[in-house]
Amino acid sequence: MSKGNINVSVENIFPLIKKFLYSDHEIFLRELISNGTDATTKLKHLISIGEANVEYGTPQIEIKIDKDNKTLHIIDQGLGMTADEVEKYINQIAFSGAEEFLEKYKDSNNETGVIGHFGLGFYSAFMVADKVEIITKSYKDEPAAHWICDGSPEYTLEAHDKTERGTEIILHISEDEKDFLEEHKISGLLTKYNRFNQIPIKFGTKEETLPLPEGAAEDAKPETKTVDNIINNTNPAWTKKPADLEGDDYKTFYRELYPMQFEEPLFHIHLNVDYPFNLTGILYFPRLSQNMDIQKDKIQLYQNQVFVTDNVEGIVPDFLQMLKGVIDSPDIPLNVSRSYLQADGAVKKISGYITKKVADKLSSLFKKDREDFEQKWNDIKVIIEYGMLSEDKFFDKAKKFALYPTVNDTYFTFDELVEKTKDAQTDKDGNHVILYAANKDAQHSYIEDAKAKGYEVLLLDSPIVSHLMQKLETSNTEAKIQFKRVDADHVDNLIKKDDTVISKLTDEEKEKLKPVIEGAVNNTNYTVQLEAMDSSASPFLITVPEFMRRMKEMQASGGGGMMGMGNLPEMYNLVVNTNHELIGDILNADGDKQKQLVSQAFDLAKLSQNLLHGEELTNFIKRSYELIK
Amino acid sequence: MSKGNINVSVENIFPLIKKFLYSDHEIFLRELISNGTDATTKLKHLISIGEANVEYGTPQIEIKIDKDNKTLHIIDQGLGMTADEVEKYINQIAFSGAEEFLEKYKDSNNETGVIGHFGLGFYSAFMVADKVEIITKSYKDEPAAHWICDGSPEYTLEAHDKTERGTEIILHISEDEKDFLEEHKISGLLTKYNRFNQIPIKFGTKEETLPLPEGAAEDAKPETKTVDNIINNTNPAWTKKPADLEGDDYKTFYRELYPMQFEEPLFHIHLNVDYPFNLTGILYFPRLSQNMDIQKDKIQLYQNQVFVTDNVEGIVPDFLQMLKGVIDSPDIPLNVSRSYLQADGAVKKISGYITKKVADKLSSLFKKDREDFEQKWNDIKVIIEYGMLSEDKFFDKAKKFALYPTVNDTYFTFDELVEKTKDAQTDKDGNHVILYAANKDAQHSYIEDAKAKGYEVLLLDSPIVSHLMQKLETSNTEAKIQFKRVDADHVDNLIKKDDTVISKLTDEEKEKLKPVIEGAVNNTNYTVQLEAMDSSASPFLITVPEFMRRMKEMQASGGGGMMGMGNLPEMYNLVVNTNHELIGDILNADGDKQKQLVSQAFDLAKLSQNLLHGEELTNFIKRSYELIK
Repeated sequence: MSKGNINVSVENIFPLIKKFLYSDHEIFLRELISNGTDATTKLKHLISIGEANVEYGTPQIEIKIDKDNKTLHIIDQGLGMTADEVEKYINQIAFSGAEEFLEKYKDSNNETGVIGHFGLGFYSAFMVADKVEIITKSYKDEPAAHWICDGSPEYTLEAHDKTERGTEIILHISEDEKDFLEEHKISGLLTKYNRFNQIPIKFGTKEETLPLPEGAAEDAKPETKTVDNIINNTNPAWTKKPADLEGDDYKTFYRELYPMQFEEPLFHIHLNVDYPFNLTGILYFPRLSQNMDIQKDKIQLYQNQVFVTDNVEGIVPDFLQMLKGVIDSPDIPLNVSRSYLQADGAVKKISGYITKKVADKLSSLFKKDREDFEQKWNDIKVIIEYGMLSEDKFFDKAKKFALYPTVNDTYFTFDELVEKTKDAQTDKDGNHVILYAANKDAQHSYIEDAKAKGYEVLLLDSPIVSHLMQKLETSNTEAKIQFKRVDADHVDNLIKKDDTVISKLTDEEKEKLKPVIEGAVNNTNYTVQLEAMDSSASPFLITVPEFMRRMKEMQASGGGGMMGMGNLPEMYNLVVNTNHELIGDILNADGDKQKQLVSQAFDLAKLSQNLLHGEELTNFIKRSYELIK
Repeated sequence: MSKGNINVSVENIFPLIKKFLYSDHEIFLRELISNGTDATTKLKHLISIGEANVEYGTPQIEIKIDKDNKTLHIIDQGLGMTADEVEKYINQIAFSGAEEFLEKYKDSNNETGVIGHFGLGFYSAFMVADKVEIITKSYKDEPAAHWICDGSPEYTLEAHDKTERGTEIILHISEDEKDFLEEHKISGLLTKYNRFNQIPIKFGTKEETLPLPEGAAEDAKPETKTVDNIINNTNPAWTKKPADLEGDDYKTFYRELYPMQFEEPLFHIHLNVDYPFNLTGILYFPRLSQNMDIQKDKIQLYQNQVFVTDNVEGIVPDFLQMLKGVIDSPDIPLNVSRSYLQADGAVKKISGYITKKVADKLSSLFKKDREDFEQKWNDIKVIIEYGMLSEDKFFDKAKKFALYPTVNDTYFTFDELVEKTKDAQTDKDGNHVILYAANKDAQHSYIEDAKAKGYEVLLLDSPIVSHLMQKLETSNTEAKIQFKRVDADHVDNLIKKDDTVISKLTDEEKEKLKPVIEGAVNNTNYTVQLEAMDSSASPFLITVPEFMRRMKEMQASGGGGMMGMGNLPEMYNLVVNTNHELIGDILNADGDKQKQLVSQAFDLAKLSQNLLHGEELTNFIKRSYELIK
């Protein structure tokens, strides 16, 4: 038997790292700036614990484009490297400098953020450069080093006369990637990845207008001064303590984050947790404008103030992905797949923590200022309803603040609604019927009929509300709750009481009437139903049975319902009020006149369900013009 | 100056490969089966060129689960490895066995497909296993080798008594990944990645019923036999020559590919190209059912019959992503980002090739059987219109076969349409007006008016057609083509001719009439417009000016149009036909009656644009019941 160590062959792994390790070439800049940032924060730390005896100053990271030489320069003023350190950290790929550093100093400082693995991040430079140089001067009293590598595993290392502390990376940008020599391209990348970087980043200069000196002449021209163009805010709002921020600070940060978004957010949630994971951030509930462009502004994920992605699937629960804002955590593994993320215990905890914080915030807003919460309800209901359907823990909390608005803009909680309606809206079999409309306009006449009976009518119009009703019906075991849309039946049948209305028609007349109407309707999707109703109620009424309609809707909005229901035709009941005087007229009219009366009444009933279209509508309009001539 | 070689440190790179190289843990199985497949096809090749002097037989790859020992076994009957080869191919990570093999034999055979990099693919096993064993016997006359590694860089290698040729990989599945010991899980993975693998894959056994022997008694029970359960089809349709396939073979393959899809495809396109890249495949135009579930069945990308992904963004042009089917190419880089793909020259050529093949197929279908093409048009139009808008080359080809159906189901090409309508539909200023409706039902009365004039009315109802109209109007420089929806104006104004209708009203009467109507309408979204029209035309008519409406629609369907137009209110013209007798009645009626007449006529006009809702509609219905009592 032989034993041995697996050997990694450099010739083959190097192109692999260069080409495949990172999926996006552009991230080389983020990686190099992160290295510079680490080098600077490490220096600060070493000074603070007395290990480095130099002046920290006000270090920055400079990005320079040299078009003539086709080079891009990243220059930091951090701790720099000696030739030995270059040998160790650069020439030994994947010897993670950052990890070793953290290991060594972990007891003295837990807060130094370090992104990525130093060695590997650096090599991403070869994705865009034919040749890479490092000129670096350590804070230690040793000469500067100059390393050059053309992307083969061979390098050269020699002394250099650089005297300022820090590291300059020079990328000789390859012909294929010459975009990275364009100012707008680099500027775009800096904005995307580094606009909240911990260390100031200088990219070129800009002119700044100086204030006029006191007592200057009225026509004096203000002087201008050339200053460094610093592209980042090193202290974004989410890194501050909630106690140090006012409401306006959160709004200002929202605009900073989404400069193209003119709508103000409804409210924010400041996230801040140390254990069992590190997470900071600010989430915003947006005003869901009709304009769905807002979807472009997604939650952004940062790692120690460096942008990682705006795909937070798996980290933020599905129902909260419509929120806006920032999450910053060093504990989220970055280079792994989404399916892996979803199985990761730490990530699950993060998702659970965010859900809990959101529920707590909503609950406190509801308690603190209910009127304001009611005003915001229509903007947030879809998120909350989706959450109630998808997360049981959220359902339990949201039950107490989820609102059910009526068509008259009264907002009930579920418990209030049950209490308010239980006397008037319990039928003779003990079912407690909750009435609702999906659209105030489309169901106007039905709503009016229910209101005339003294019933409350909810306005439930979000796309997934039929699923929520189903859940509320089945999860309330103490009361027999039934949701019914106002047009599910005529108002006397929606909530059946014991009193019966006496029919003006004899059974014989009814038997005569039914085939007349069925003949004129002549459509198998309609079931004709003769009912003795109040004589002032409509003569003809079209109703849509609740069960079928809701199953179809649930299928259409995805999941639930019953297989194949979505493809069934709509089925209607045509309720004929045998006590309306028009019905007497119809019975007494002869042939053509009878047919004309039924057609006109049927068309009018169809109109109130928006079912009269095309040729039928054209004919109805013509017939109606005839009638007013 | 010193020179040196960059050194890769094994301790750090090994966990990186294990954890980060592949985003999905499940692909370990695909990688190991690909290795087994390579080992088998390589053996076949060596035998064919006389380098290996052994019997090829009917090799298969067996997958076995051993629940007791928590191991998963992948056993091939390929060329196997000697101890020296294990040392070379397994212990030297990234020493690509496949590449070396291809390099060595490239002149004698260009067709041996080899997926992935042998060494790296193998190491994906450590994503799911604590310990991995290889037991392998080479086709060469050397003893078998047994390699064991527990995921640290240390391994052991010793002799083994295996006598059958081939390699067995034994994965000791880690506790975290014990799902991979479940039969349904492995079965699911085999179906997902390997159902068209080149070498038969055995996973367990199944019972097969034997045919009854001739002359068996009627009540004889057929015998059953236990046979290997082969999970794959090694010769899927796309690997065959088009000449060897019938129409039904393509349909059968469609069902094989999408077993849950019951709709037949409309037609197929067989892709087959050797130069400048290798690509085979079959694309299908699906019947776009209303049921959007079909979107789940996406185009699948294979590499040498191994499934890679069903995200073909960047490879297949956007407008063809609704197609179904398979693309197989060894030339598409797999582990790189989408943005990289889109910039890749080879990939661009593939995308261009597919576009061209699709255009050619559509053109030949159009020429071969126009009637059939017309019947399919509604199912394919969205794809073609989207293609015409997004790819100029496709536009140029599609111009000749894109169809413009009328409301009477006549299908014109654009040239035919222009020819057919130019005489009747050119207005006095030389504009050639093409009339269209978006919905036969909703615009019924307007369509009837246009048809009564002898005009052709197109039915253009796909969501992006307004963009296409814009393109057709601006790209036809020889004729002044204008698209107008039938309700953009009253029919005499849509295509203005020189003849004028004399008004029955005097100017004084008109001046009296206008404020009466404006007062009753009382809505700033309506502009009242008095017109002398035919006395048989409608008294009131609501029209929607073309330009504004189309701009709004273009904005709603994404892109184009004008900024902010989407948020403007709908603006209407209320055209009053001063020659209709009702207008005289209105002028002569007094106060209440006048107002009632205008209201009823205005409501009827609103009905034909589906603009009467809610309380207005309820009131209209009540008023109408009064009128028929």
